[in-house]
Amino acid sequence: MERGIFMALAKKPVTGMKDILPEEMQIRDYVINVIKDTYRSFGFTPVDTPYMEHIENLCSKQGGENEKLIFKVLKRGEKLKLESAECEADLVDMGLRYDLTLPLARFYANHANSLPSPFKALQIGNVFRADRPQRGRYRQFTQCDIDILGEPTNLSEIELILATTTTLGKLGFRGFEIRINARGMLKAMAVYSGFPEDSYESIFITLDKMDKIGLDGVAKELEENGFAKESVQKYLELFRAAEDEKDSIRAIEKLSEQLDGFLDDAVRQDLLEIINSVEQTKAADFQMVFDPTLVRGMGYYTGTIFEIAIPEFGGSCGGGGRYDKMIGNFTGNDVPACGFSIGFERIILLLMEQKFQIPSQPQKTAYLIEKNYPAEKLCDIIKKAQEARKEGQQILVVRMNKNKKFQKEKLAAEGYDSFEEFYNRSE
Amino acid sequence: MERGIFMALAKKPVTGMKDILPEEMQIRDYVINVIKDTYRSFGFTPVDTPYMEHIENLCSKQGGENEKLIFKVLKRGEKLKLESAECEADLVDMGLRYDLTLPLARFYANHANSLPSPFKALQIGNVFRADRPQRGRYRQFTQCDIDILGEPTNLSEIELILATTTTLGKLGFRGFEIRINARGMLKAMAVYSGFPEDSYESIFITLDKMDKIGLDGVAKELEENGFAKESVQKYLELFRAAEDEKDSIRAIEKLSEQLDGFLDDAVRQDLLEIINSVEQTKAADFQMVFDPTLVRGMGYYTGTIFEIAIPEFGGSCGGGGRYDKMIGNFTGNDVPACGFSIGFERIILLLMEQKFQIPSQPQKTAYLIEKNYPAEKLCDIIKKAQEARKEGQQILVVRMNKNKKFQKEKLAAEGYDSFEEFYNRSE
Repeated sequence: MERGIFMALAKKPVTGMKDILPEEMQIRDYVINVIKDTYRSFGFTPVDTPYMEHIENLCSKQGGENEKLIFKVLKRGEKLKLESAECEADLVDMGLRYDLTLPLARFYANHANSLPSPFKALQIGNVFRADRPQRGRYRQFTQCDIDILGEPTNLSEIELILATTTTLGKLGFRGFEIRINARGMLKAMAVYSGFPEDSYESIFITLDKMDKIGLDGVAKELEENGFAKESVQKYLELFRAAEDEKDSIRAIEKLSEQLDGFLDDAVRQDLLEIINSVEQTKAADFQMVFDPTLVRGMGYYTGTIFEIAIPEFGGSCGGGGRYDKMIGNFTGNDVPACGFSIGFERIILLLMEQKFQIPSQPQKTAYLIEKNYPAEKLCDIIKKAQEARKEGQQILVVRMNKNKKFQKEKLAAEGYDSFEEFYNRSE
Repeated sequence: MERGIFMALAKKPVTGMKDILPEEMQIRDYVINVIKDTYRSFGFTPVDTPYMEHIENLCSKQGGENEKLIFKVLKRGEKLKLESAECEADLVDMGLRYDLTLPLARFYANHANSLPSPFKALQIGNVFRADRPQRGRYRQFTQCDIDILGEPTNLSEIELILATTTTLGKLGFRGFEIRINARGMLKAMAVYSGFPEDSYESIFITLDKMDKIGLDGVAKELEENGFAKESVQKYLELFRAAEDEKDSIRAIEKLSEQLDGFLDDAVRQDLLEIINSVEQTKAADFQMVFDPTLVRGMGYYTGTIFEIAIPEFGGSCGGGGRYDKMIGNFTGNDVPACGFSIGFERIILLLMEQKFQIPSQPQKTAYLIEKNYPAEKLCDIIKKAQEARKEGQQILVVRMNKNKKFQKEKLAAEGYDSFEEFYNRSE
């Protein structure tokens, strides 16, 4: 190679995306297996959708803020008419998916006839968002979603919460919370307070900042946004009263009484049934917590919404809710739908920080073979390795490096706890 | 929803890509687990790389014909200058990967210091090629690669072939072949025949069509391409002689004698050692077959090349070889490298056609609950389900449809072999 004209290729991954090294990859594989096994035991069936979607679907106002973060794929061949292109939209016909919910809705709309109804779907895959790169946040990341399609009752919510929390429990998480609320509750509180009807979404955007700016911050922002002081005060009192009542069941009952005439009784009843059923049947150490400040950003939610809060981790570690109107965008006929997305990347981050040890690993042995070991004798070593592999052991067969000590240190870091060395002794 | 202005979103996947339904997905998951478990027992360590790569890397002449099939990703924000863009290259800075080899070479160049040497990598992921859509061939598909980086001897080839064939054996494949050849053998045959030195790649492209057009077809195309009749005749005689010798070891020895003075003896020795070692230590029912007509398209191969031929499946079902020069394109220093890519999509296709039954599935029971079943009693059913799930059973809890018979048929197709029904009897 002539060094003078050597033009090196780029070694780093593209901006905002990362290579995954063996240490993290082994934990990811383990967690995915736990997730799949647990979700399968609840009857969720794996499905998969392409990484690319029609650009019209991605930009159909289902994705909220995520629609600003789409990686768009250039048209190919004759379809690309660069000379006459006037805007971005003329150049692209596909984009990379930013979540798994929209592709699942398309999938269900396309295949409903050949799927059982209700259908319990499990989807694990990467999604892409051109977010500003920042620590621990990447432009490609893995999502794990379960969804129940075609089931109108709260049996969906109960099963989704049980499946997700059982998984978290199996991964060693304890003492966490599932916070729950309902779009109907959010709306009733806004109506009761006298806010104008076309302003609810704007109010919920402010309310969503509660964990960052507190109750007073929310009040301040609402007033700054021009809402009547009286409404803001009424609104705040509702939250203060709910805050005082630590028991979720009593908090829902109390708030429902206050909202009498504004709140659909089905919303109250759903929340109570979900909390009671989950508490009585849960298989992990966590609590159901009614949280009237819980908003969840996505505009497509129509009913119950919920979120995982793990004390070791500030902020949400996954969430979901009911979205009964999305599939109708594809077919013209609404299908009840409810989903839960576990915060896969955050869970991996937490486990990595806790130096998580994967349970029940096979025995790992490395065979180190001296460099000039003759080919005809090498076969015997490989035979021995093949026998051990048949018995379930992990056997690495490699040449011995000059710096054997350093080589063994690296292998020990990969989990090799036993070594055998083979030398070509002159006999 | 106002039907008059309803604009349905597209239900079909994008051109050339497919949704994966439960039946296929369950087989894919099973096969991936077998692949991972087997490769791990050989000491291959999982790694992962992003789905997007720098466009300069993808278009660096490593990818051969695949470089024409890249899905390119539009630049974002201020970087996109549509007005001044004169060609496609001005619009894009990334593309979707078309294979796993180039990303792995970049990965290794970037992380070699924190990896053991030699490093045995396992990578499973999707790749994208804008191929003309055709039956059984998709624009997004899964690849499963194992590679050994930093090992110059044929221990790499032996371990790669053993690991891949052990996996195929575990998946139930019998009586298949691993065809093997070497770039050095291909070259020696071309030199011996007297072809001009700058024409070897063109000759190999023709030779690669052997399985489609036969020996006479190859001869005809070579003559049409203007090569001397005498050279073509000499070349053909080599292949005819090799064809007559069914025993691979003897075929190599015979061909080597003929090529005396043209063939590097290390090439002969490597082929013999690999075939002998694999035959003596293999853990599956297959044969090593020397095939002097084997070319493997990719220009980056530098040494041994090999391919899986499964009798039930016309054509190759995976392959690989040695590519000692690729990592040097990133670092300036060559690193010996050898890889094997198992034909994942073809294996899935074969298993689907054979109505493959996944072994050792858990018991699958569906609880069907009458529609108006009261919430307070639902809890007892969920409790029962939770107990059974703890014992490893798969329990689906769903509402009973009006057409119960049809529902049960669909569920039976998903593998549910036992049903329990719950009615709200007036008591």
